[in-house]
Amino acid sequence: MSQTIRRIAFVGLGAMGQPMAVNLVKQQYHVTGFDVRPAARQWLVDRGGHAAETARDAARDADALILMVVNAAQAEDVLFKDAALEGIRIGATIVLMATCAPDKVSDIARRVEGTGRHFIDAPVSGGVVGATAGTLTIMAAAPDATFQAAEPMLRTLGANLFHLGQKPGQGAAMKIVNQLLCGLHIVAAAEGLALAERSGIDPKRALEILSGSAAASWMLKDRGPRMVEDTGKVTSAVDIFVKDMGLVMEAGKAAHMGLPLAALAEQTFRAASGMGLGLDDDSQAIAVYRALARKA
Amino acid sequence: MSQTIRRIAFVGLGAMGQPMAVNLVKQQYHVTGFDVRPAARQWLVDRGGHAAETARDAARDADALILMVVNAAQAEDVLFKDAALEGIRIGATIVLMATCAPDKVSDIARRVEGTGRHFIDAPVSGGVVGATAGTLTIMAAAPDATFQAAEPMLRTLGANLFHLGQKPGQGAAMKIVNQLLCGLHIVAAAEGLALAERSGIDPKRALEILSGSAAASWMLKDRGPRMVEDTGKVTSAVDIFVKDMGLVMEAGKAAHMGLPLAALAEQTFRAASGMGLGLDDDSQAIAVYRALARKA
Repeated sequence: MSQTIRRIAFVGLGAMGQPMAVNLVKQQYHVTGFDVRPAARQWLVDRGGHAAETARDAARDADALILMVVNAAQAEDVLFKDAALEGIRIGATIVLMATCAPDKVSDIARRVEGTGRHFIDAPVSGGVVGATAGTLTIMAAAPDATFQAAEPMLRTLGANLFHLGQKPGQGAAMKIVNQLLCGLHIVAAAEGLALAERSGIDPKRALEILSGSAAASWMLKDRGPRMVEDTGKVTSAVDIFVKDMGLVMEAGKAAHMGLPLAALAEQTFRAASGMGLGLDDDSQAIAVYRALARKA
Repeated sequence: MSQTIRRIAFVGLGAMGQPMAVNLVKQQYHVTGFDVRPAARQWLVDRGGHAAETARDAARDADALILMVVNAAQAEDVLFKDAALEGIRIGATIVLMATCAPDKVSDIARRVEGTGRHFIDAPVSGGVVGATAGTLTIMAAAPDATFQAAEPMLRTLGANLFHLGQKPGQGAAMKIVNQLLCGLHIVAAAEGLALAERSGIDPKRALEILSGSAAASWMLKDRGPRMVEDTGKVTSAVDIFVKDMGLVMEAGKAAHMGLPLAALAEQTFRAASGMGLGLDDDSQAIAVYRALARKA
């Protein structure tokens, strides 16, 4: 049976991982972080956490290993190649919070559980704002006992915690539906605001009106301000959505289902990346519309 | 100069017009309604309003004529064919609240102003819910003096009142951007929820999660419940969006701008209408996705 989780190994201290790890530190968890960038490790140490030189070292003596990496391939590297899985005790819990394809997650879960460790599929939504405030939406799938043992830890990371089912992969499937709407709403906001600009409407005024009307979306309110005035701030990069919309399209393929709007949104992010904006804030997808509406 | 508005002729007592007219009655305006359906006229009388047998009769002695009709063609019929414009006094104000093409609105405004009456372009967003609560977003364009004289009346109809500019047509242009996002968000919600269904996720659970995450939109929260469980309730029909997305595409054409997402959303509403769902609630656009994902 799972035990109370007090010691946590946290791998992946990026824009999301950093505030998440710190929220755990604040709740008196013993958090040992690992990231390939030494500066990110030091950042956590400066805030009351601990750091290790390798993922495997971070996992030693931990009750749980949280993977807040970019994708399934990185998660596999950390667990199997860097041997963090071998480094963590039997009975410990691996929590995969990256956005991955559902079949990949099932596959990793099987391999982890085969070694006597527990596994939770737990992707998140809410961005850096939610990660910082501890208000992330967490879409978890794991056997009841595994989920319950990790519940206080997960609730520290995300107030909107859902236990979707017993089978790892179900959380990933839900996250993909979530990303379909997130990505689509970003491109929809870009299309709408670009039409406003092109129609001679002050885009800031348009954004104010749309944000308070039936046209509003979470993404419009969050990304819209950076579409009408680029601050250079990057909360999530264009290339993250190139990857995530790719996963959405794979899910559609697996479900034998056409996703025409998602396909267009994917192409728009891909075009933005092709314009050299891959590392820019995803709000800059609006550049695709501006390029297409530019006088030749 | 415009005078204080106390007596209002209200033409178009549909799902939106009825609660709007009643909100004016409640604020002690003298409201005379007209609708082609006698039952709708009686409905207003039962709630403290008045009724007339023709639009022209309703307009007699009124300070303002509100047109809450379906489109520009109906507005033109009421004003010019049914001669409501001739029936209302010189110096009165015509308020066009239907969703119309911007160039049509400019054209109607010119004809109205040419007869010595004032004109306000004032489309709304917020649906029946907003109409009932008096929280509609109103996107108004009119000369300052005309707008100011009508402001208390407009504010009774919609708490989110914006004066976008002096030229009628500017409100209509803003409304079209608004409809682009509204229509798109309905179809986006349909695509996302259909993928959830197809992936074996309980759609009600999916909707709950999406409504509280970064994937949320006003339309997802409002239409989503009727997508996952059709109540037969119609707040706004599919064919309204066939019309509105048509106006969006015309605006894109006029702006020499491609609107790929809006084009797909338009085709989806058109397909839903083609499936015989034109008079059903616009949430039933999800039927298009279900039909495409049905096992043959």
